[in-house]
Order: sequence, then C-alpha cells, then structure tokens
Amino acid sequence: MAAMASLYLKTSISDPNSFPYLSKPFLNRPINLPLRRQTHPKTRSTTRISASLIDPDGGKLVQLFVPESEKDSKSKQALGLPKIRLSKIDLQWVHVLSEGWASPLKGFMRESEFLQTLHFNSLRLENGSVVNMSLPIVLAIDDVQKNRVGSFTSVALVDEDDDLVAVLNEGEEVINPVQYNDGLDRFRLSPAQLRDEFEKRNADAVFAFQLRNPVHNGHALLMTDTRRRLLEMGYKNPVLLLHPLGGYTKADDVPLSWRMKQHEKVLEDGVLDPETTVVSIFPSPMHYAGPTEVQWHAKARINAGANFYIVGRDPAGMSHPLEKRDLYDADHGKKVLSMAPGLERLNILPFKVAAYDKTQSKMAFFDPSRAQDFLFISGTKMRTLAKNRENPPDGFMCPGGWKVLVDYYDSLAPSENGRVAEPVPA
Amino acid sequence: MAAMASLYLKTSISDPNSFPYLSKPFLNRPINLPLRRQTHPKTRSTTRISASLIDPDGGKLVQLFVPESEKDSKSKQALGLPKIRLSKIDLQWVHVLSEGWASPLKGFMRESEFLQTLHFNSLRLENGSVVNMSLPIVLAIDDVQKNRVGSFTSVALVDEDDDLVAVLNEGEEVINPVQYNDGLDRFRLSPAQLRDEFEKRNADAVFAFQLRNPVHNGHALLMTDTRRRLLEMGYKNPVLLLHPLGGYTKADDVPLSWRMKQHEKVLEDGVLDPETTVVSIFPSPMHYAGPTEVQWHAKARINAGANFYIVGRDPAGMSHPLEKRDLYDADHGKKVLSMAPGLERLNILPFKVAAYDKTQSKMAFFDPSRAQDFLFISGTKMRTLAKNRENPPDGFMCPGGWKVLVDYYDSLAPSENGRVAEPVPA
Repeated sequence: MAAMASLYLKTSISDPNSFPYLSKPFLNRPINLPLRRQTHPKTRSTTRISASLIDPDGGKLVQLFVPESEKDSKSKQALGLPKIRLSKIDLQWVHVLSEGWASPLKGFMRESEFLQTLHFNSLRLENGSVVNMSLPIVLAIDDVQKNRVGSFTSVALVDEDDDLVAVLNEGEEVINPVQYNDGLDRFRLSPAQLRDEFEKRNADAVFAFQLRNPVHNGHALLMTDTRRRLLEMGYKNPVLLLHPLGGYTKADDVPLSWRMKQHEKVLEDGVLDPETTVVSIFPSPMHYAGPTEVQWHAKARINAGANFYIVGRDPAGMSHPLEKRDLYDADHGKKVLSMAPGLERLNILPFKVAAYDKTQSKMAFFDPSRAQDFLFISGTKMRTLAKNRENPPDGFMCPGGWKVLVDYYDSLAPSENGRVAEPVPA
Repeated sequence: MAAMASLYLKTSISDPNSFPYLSKPFLNRPINLPLRRQTHPKTRSTTRISASLIDPDGGKLVQLFVPESEKDSKSKQALGLPKIRLSKIDLQWVHVLSEGWASPLKGFMRESEFLQTLHFNSLRLENGSVVNMSLPIVLAIDDVQKNRVGSFTSVALVDEDDDLVAVLNEGEEVINPVQYNDGLDRFRLSPAQLRDEFEKRNADAVFAFQLRNPVHNGHALLMTDTRRRLLEMGYKNPVLLLHPLGGYTKADDVPLSWRMKQHEKVLEDGVLDPETTVVSIFPSPMHYAGPTEVQWHAKARINAGANFYIVGRDPAGMSHPLEKRDLYDADHGKKVLSMAPGLERLNILPFKVAAYDKTQSKMAFFDPSRAQDFLFISGTKMRTLAKNRENPPDGFMCPGGWKVLVDYYDSLAPSENGRVAEPVPA
C-alpha cells in the first residue's frame, strides 16, 4: 500500500518524507492533516477560508455531523424511532450531504427543494440568491416503510447491517460518519478538508477535473495546459483537483479501486505534477443524467473550493441503451453548464480535444489543418486493447497506468469479461 | 352576432352605445380601439405604457410584424426560399410569437433558448436578468423538410393552404398576421392591444384568470372576491382579464366557440361586472404540461399587462391516461408557480375552493367547519349533467350559460357524444 501514499492522504502522517509527491508549500508548513476518525469535522468549526477560495453555495459549508459530546444521547434517542434501511446509494447520498457537497442542503430534499430542482435546476434561498441544484437528492421509500414511519417526525437511518448512521428530522443529523472500509476511505476528503488543503498549498485558483475513467495522456495534457493558461492569466499557484467519482457507477465502468490504482501510477510516472495536484475521491453516485448531472458535478466542486471546472465532451453521459449513439447530445452538457443559474461564479473551461499525434508519437491537441496525423482512441477502443492485452500506441498512457488497466481486465472471470463489451464515453 | 358585442371587441367601433358592458372610464374617453386590419401593431410603436402596468418581460414587448411598407418586397423575397408548411399548432405558435406573448423571444427557440427552457424554465438575458420560459416553443421539422432547407438560412413559413405567413431567419418576420376566420378573430387581442385597453380603463391592477372550461358561479365568486381583496389592498380600479385559452385543446374539452358563447352569457346575465372585466382570447395551444405549463400561462399574462394571476387546483393538468387520478399532483402547479424564476414580480393568487352551499343555494367558499352543507360538482359531473340535459342545482351556473353547455352536447352526434366521457379538471 506504500505506493498509494503518492496520492493525497487524509489520515495521520508521521513521516512527511514518505510522501514524495506532496508539494513544497505543503512540506514547508507544520503538517496538520485533518484526522477523520479522531478529529471530527464539526469540531473544526474555526476552519479558515482563505480569501482566494470561492465561497461555498449559500455562503457557509453545511456539515451535518452530530458533535462528539451528543453522540451517545442521540444514539439512545434513535432507539425509539422507526427505522429506514439505507441502500448503498442512499448511504452515498448521506455521505455527500453530511460533508456539505450539496450545501446549502441540510439533508434529503423536501418537497419545495425537490420541485425547484426538477423544474429550475436551482434553489432560491431565503435571501433571494440562487444556487444551482440539478439532481434530486431524495430518500425514496416504499409504502411499507411509509406506514412504519406513520406520524413520526423523526426517523433513524440505518445501513445494511442495521447500524445507526443518522437521524432524519428537520434536517438530518449524521451520528456515525459514513465509512466504506474498502481501503480507500482515507482518500475521501470532505469539502472542508479539501479547502484546508488548498489553503495550505496557497492555491489562488483551484481547477477541478471530474472523472470516472482511467487517465490517459490526453487528459494529462489538458490538465497541464490548463495550469499553464491559469498562470498566464496571472494566477500564481493554480492547483488541480483530480477528482474521480467514487459512488455508484454502472457495471461496465472501471471500478473505483482499479481507477485509483491507475491514477496513482499516473502520478508516480510523473505525468501529472504532484506538487500542484490533489487527488481525492468525490463520494457522489452517478446518475448518468448528462447535462442535468454535470451541473451537480460542478456545483459540488464549488463547495470544495474549486473556481474553475473543466468540462469535456458528453459529460455524465452514456451510450444509448439500444441505439449505437450517445444518449445525450455530446455538446449539451458544456452548453447547459455555461448557462446554468447559480454557477455564474464558476469559470467553465471547455475540454480541448486531444488525440494521438502520429508525427510526434504522443497525445496532442487536435489540429484540424493536419487531421490525417491524428488518431482518435475512443474509450471503447482503449478497453478493447486492454482486454486483449494489447498495447496502445506509445505515449497514449504511461506504462504503469496501462498495466493497471490490463490487470483489471485480467482479474475478471472470462464470462464476466465477455459481458464487459459496451462502450463507455471516455 | 349582436350578443357577442358584450365581449370586448378589437374591431372598429362606430357606435359606443352598442357596447353596454364597456366600462365608464372607457366610455368617457375618446374611443380609439386598435384596428387590427387597418392599423398594424408594429406601426403603433409609440404605445404608451402607463406606470401602473407591469413591464413586459425583457422590458419591451416584442412584435414581429413586418411594416406595411415592406410587405411586398418581403413577400417577393420569400418566393425564392424553401418552404415549411406549418401545422395548425405551429400556426398558433407563430401567432403567439408575433404578438409578443412570449417576449422577449424573437421567434421560435434556437438551441440556447431551448436548452435553458428544458433545464431552467427560464432564460437569462444579455443584461443578466432572468425571465421565465417554461414551454419549448419550437418549430419541429422532419428529415425531408430539413433536407429541403439545406444550407438556406431563411425559410418561408406557409399555412396549410400554402399561403405565406412568415419568414424565418435571425428572428422571425411575420408578413401576414395570423387570422383564423372563425368568427372569433375580433376577440383575439394582442398584448399591446390589451395594454392599451387596460390603460384606457385606468386599471391600476390587472388580475388574469386563465381558463379553458365554462365559467360557473364558483369561478365568478372567486373573481369578484379577488377584485374586492384588491380594492381592500388599496387599488382603485382592479380589472379582470378573463382569458380563455384559444389554441389547441384535447377532444373532450369544450370547443372555443361554445366556451365563448357561454362566457358571453355569463356577462349578459350579470354574473361578472363588464365594467371591470375584459374578455379576450389567449391564442396559445395547450400542452397539458401541468406545473411546467402554468408558468407559461402566467408569464404570457405579464406580457399582456397582468400583475396578478389567479391559480387554481391542478392548473394545465389532465387526467392520467390510464389510471383514475390526476396526471400531476394537484398542488404542484401552484407551488411551482410561487417559486418560479422570472415570475417574482407577478403576484400569485391561489384559488380559494368554492363549492355549492346547500343552505344558501349558491356557490360559496368552502367552510370546512360545516363541510356537510357543501356539494362539490366536478367537471365530470357538470358535463354529465349537461349531456343528459339535466339541470345543476340552482345557483351553480347562470341559466343562459348552462343552456349553451346543453346545446353544445346536443349538437354532437350521438356517437361523438358517446366518446366524450373522460373527465377534464375543472
């Protein structure tokens, strides 16, 4: 697991020298990483927000954790409440809500927030301001559960092992912060923790890159180029938030654990500069809702301190379930994002198209004047190569990263492998 | 047709005494009704907007009519353009767009407006302000038509008789204002004409009532009561815009011509005060899109000068096509309307529930403390009674209005009558 240390860790650090990729500004400061299990986010209520970080939606990061001192009494109260068992995806939403990714939401949506989300993709706050909110974050229950709740106005939310997670009442109160115990919890930084980290790095611009696929050199080129452009704009220290989605994904997406291994190799191989890159897991589940969902992806990153957001082709999209085409118009995500209410203060950076430049044997921005020099390697093509243990052209992906991908497909049983055939938008 | 004069006419008036229901303020002024065929709206560009009337969305009423002087040259140019034949509903939308009901739209939506409408139910204008826009007003064409248009950037829009209506280019230019020649064109006042009328009446508040059903005494009570409340609020001359929808409706709705006859009787019978009531036809087609569509109904009335909007149960709703229930939650329309971006300056007046009070033999606001005294007569019940030539309880609807309804169902062939069975939300 030592290699994982090349990613940013949220657990306690005893030997800074074991973190070869932490930035100089970071190492020059006293090391004071947030300790998730020991130091509760709510207890760190004095978090400084540097003037250079964008404000969270609603002005204040909402965190729903019950203070340590009230945990016992709240847990006891919960014993007398009707229970709702959370599905895996419900639990991911509790995680998302509890840390403030969906600020200013104080819990699952109630009717007014739900209606505004469905109709307006935004919420109007009491002060008249508008924040973006495009995905309905609701706790769906069936009639049996509804009858069990009856006239209670509080409900205990339990996980699949019947362990208490939170209490739902006016707003939700999370008693036991969500843990997945999958070896990756330490990479799940909350918005407050990310903001702390950006501050520590003296970031004066944070650009977020949402992804749920392996990173190839075209992505890396884009991220490097974005930093260059931000420096040209006058920023002194733009920091990249490389932010793989960690919640539910469909069966033919590469699983989170393999993606994290792949991202790690990309940093190890020096494709991205660890000094100016924070890799962390975004806990949200996917809806594959295209232009609707990309707004959520962007909005949540505002709450984590990002003021620039990179948007690619067909964001949060998927293939049509029956026809051989994208489900959404591939340009609509970018267009909707640029027009979305509540996202005016987020700078949208459209993805420049990168392709494999045969004349340079590397990924480069596509130049239409010499289109014949470029090779487009789709997500489908990439996966087919990896499944067949073939190599992509040199320079498409760092060798360590590619090996992870090949290993992943090798790890699948042949029958399982046979089913992993559908394309995923890259 | 003399009786129709009890409704507000848009054609030339020679004898004011033939209009018994025109208001005193109106009669005290020089009579200067807009003359649709002779004086073109575009040529009346100096229309005063009184300080008391609400501004149109975007600050200025958009009217798309080609000036009389350019009609010939534009018509000639159109001869060289590819043609798109408009369906009846397309033509209704051209009508709507041409008069500025959808201000600030300058024609059918383009991609940016379409995306904003679908996602945000609103449009952001260049100055940063937001106007409501919930219904996609688009001209849908098929592949054959698309190929015919090819690379042309202008297209001639023709009606079902191949007569030129408008030219579509940057914005649309309407060359021949839409007429239906159904005997009701004179009741189709444009927003500019309605604004003129409200000014002439010295209206300091305009409250709009959208309807597509016969008016019963419960509606009348509500409208009368609304005026009373507005007077209590300090307005000196609140005017009612009784605004039946005139475009496409589904087969089991009562047709426009019969509804207009019924509304006329209601004014003749003195159920509504003609001095403070303007009856006019709203040219939009129905989508039955419930909470989405009610926003359009409200927004269009802002453009016509209304600053109060009465909203009832299940606005723009319909029955579920298969199940015995409303398609939409009956309260969502009202709730969404009260939260909709761009409608902040419109005062939403929720419909008070009226029912037949058996103790008074008249329609009255429902009093839950003596619920047993009230009889709810649904739209279905009302239609069933009329179909069977039965009478509703005394005081439910004025006798003249009821007779129109009975006559309508009598006019249907038995087989047709047999099909008119599904309930329509009242």
